[in-house]
Amino acid sequence: MTASGAVVGVDIGGTKVLAAEVGDDGVVVRRALRHTPGRRVEPRLVEDALTQAVHEAAGERPLAAVGIAAAGLVDAAGERVRFAAHLPWVGEPVRTRLEERWGVPVALDNDATCAALAESELGAARGASSALMITLGTGIGGGVLVDGRVVRGFGGMAGEFGHMQLVPDGLACECGSVGCWEQYCSGNALVRHARAHLASSTALAELCDHDPAALTGPMVTVAAEDGDAVALDAFASVGGWLGTGLANLVAAFDPERLVVGGGVATAGELLLGPARTVLASSVLGAAHRELPTLEVAALGPDAGLVGAALMARLLT
Amino acid sequence: MTASGAVVGVDIGGTKVLAAEVGDDGVVVRRALRHTPGRRVEPRLVEDALTQAVHEAAGERPLAAVGIAAAGLVDAAGERVRFAAHLPWVGEPVRTRLEERWGVPVALDNDATCAALAESELGAARGASSALMITLGTGIGGGVLVDGRVVRGFGGMAGEFGHMQLVPDGLACECGSVGCWEQYCSGNALVRHARAHLASSTALAELCDHDPAALTGPMVTVAAEDGDAVALDAFASVGGWLGTGLANLVAAFDPERLVVGGGVATAGELLLGPARTVLASSVLGAAHRELPTLEVAALGPDAGLVGAALMARLLT
Repeated sequence: MTASGAVVGVDIGGTKVLAAEVGDDGVVVRRALRHTPGRRVEPRLVEDALTQAVHEAAGERPLAAVGIAAAGLVDAAGERVRFAAHLPWVGEPVRTRLEERWGVPVALDNDATCAALAESELGAARGASSALMITLGTGIGGGVLVDGRVVRGFGGMAGEFGHMQLVPDGLACECGSVGCWEQYCSGNALVRHARAHLASSTALAELCDHDPAALTGPMVTVAAEDGDAVALDAFASVGGWLGTGLANLVAAFDPERLVVGGGVATAGELLLGPARTVLASSVLGAAHRELPTLEVAALGPDAGLVGAALMARLLT
Repeated sequence: MTASGAVVGVDIGGTKVLAAEVGDDGVVVRRALRHTPGRRVEPRLVEDALTQAVHEAAGERPLAAVGIAAAGLVDAAGERVRFAAHLPWVGEPVRTRLEERWGVPVALDNDATCAALAESELGAARGASSALMITLGTGIGGGVLVDGRVVRGFGGMAGEFGHMQLVPDGLACECGSVGCWEQYCSGNALVRHARAHLASSTALAELCDHDPAALTGPMVTVAAEDGDAVALDAFASVGGWLGTGLANLVAAFDPERLVVGGGVATAGELLLGPARTVLASSVLGAAHRELPTLEVAALGPDAGLVGAALMARLLT
């Protein structure tokens, strides 16, 4: 538990466990990767995978502290994962259990909250007193910073932006509701849009070998970068919905900065261009205010684990 | 400027200027009322009305400090009214100007933010670490409390909940956008709904003397309390939209408490009943979280001026 040990951050999502030793400057020293065993398994199997990844990331060094960024609902105390769509934890006291198993302090938080903290300390939200982080992956994750501090909400569930309803009687969402923002603005929405028009795009059809089910977000990004009309249209749709949702968040929070991360954000201006247009035309009183700056996250897929490591370092 | 002088709070809206001396316990001591001269007049005329109301509220006592709750966009520094739909101020340094005119410290903030502060200190949000205040009048006003503190946003415009877009291609809003929440959930929305079905309600037709233009929100409340079907349906619609919008705010902020104020909220459970139903069925992960309590504001139409007086008292 001395400062000479390794501080490790882990990002656990539905498909992979990404761990890394992170230096006190926030730089990744050594990485380790495991597959997530799945949702319908014993929690212990997931914790075994975490343990292996954490020790591999620490290398030969003793552990000093571990931070866990989890793709799920974490309580405000950072103790339990209340629920996670792709993980077996339901109300489990994950933090204490792993602290006992590893014998070092453990910090636990929602992955998007961890990413927001990392972007605030080291990335695209640096220097901003208030910022919102929106991560576009399978769905939408969100993190909130107000007056320089992470806002977790009463039950730890602030920032679940993806489930704000933007379309009455809209598309069904996995959450049980309909018309949720992430049904229109996410990696899934991008791929769905492109699939629906696959017959009109030779480029996309070739990329996925004419199998709609094999089409992925990165393929749509590649095709859009090459100027494919269907792929560009998919980004125009998702980017437009990004702008609509961001305008709502600006009305509610009035942040200094908006940071968009996650896999879809690697498309940069293909996504942010349409979002900027809609945002500028939708925000209340645009003529009488300064609009927040809209930027792509700087830390990429490392943001979650780096933020988790920053939290863990405070425990050493 | 001594503590022995009067601390006065003023709430200035589009139709009236409501001022009161407020004791250090938050209780109103003496009131004064003026009409708001309007939007297309010299700002000086509005400031004259404010001055008269403030001095009348102070009675024979010297002023110690004045707090102003303004129905408009106030900058984060509490110095300027950037824009107000029903007032002549556009970017005017209202705080300094009135401080010089009155010779005492002046605090200035958005009316809903002032109301949120008052409800937090003395009313329905008392004891809650985080709360959202939603005031339903002509439109929707909003105030944000996080970790016990008022959140104003980067430009002072946090809490403009009424202009979150909930309906794509929806009803046109005065703000220039479409589908804004307040077009479906406000006093105006309530009256519009009742007017559209006036022919089906003997009670409402009699209340407004068969003149749809004369129908008001309080008339709809009276008819609903008497069991009129059209009036109840209007509350079901507005209350349902209240629930939808609150669910979105809960997804974003995860507050401990929701407080609904403004004229429409005097209808109590007629409004909150439908809202509770929609909220419980729409909020993400309702089975895995504690829902925030939903309450009617306790301070009624005094909330804004009492909150402004609380801010002013800090300056004495």
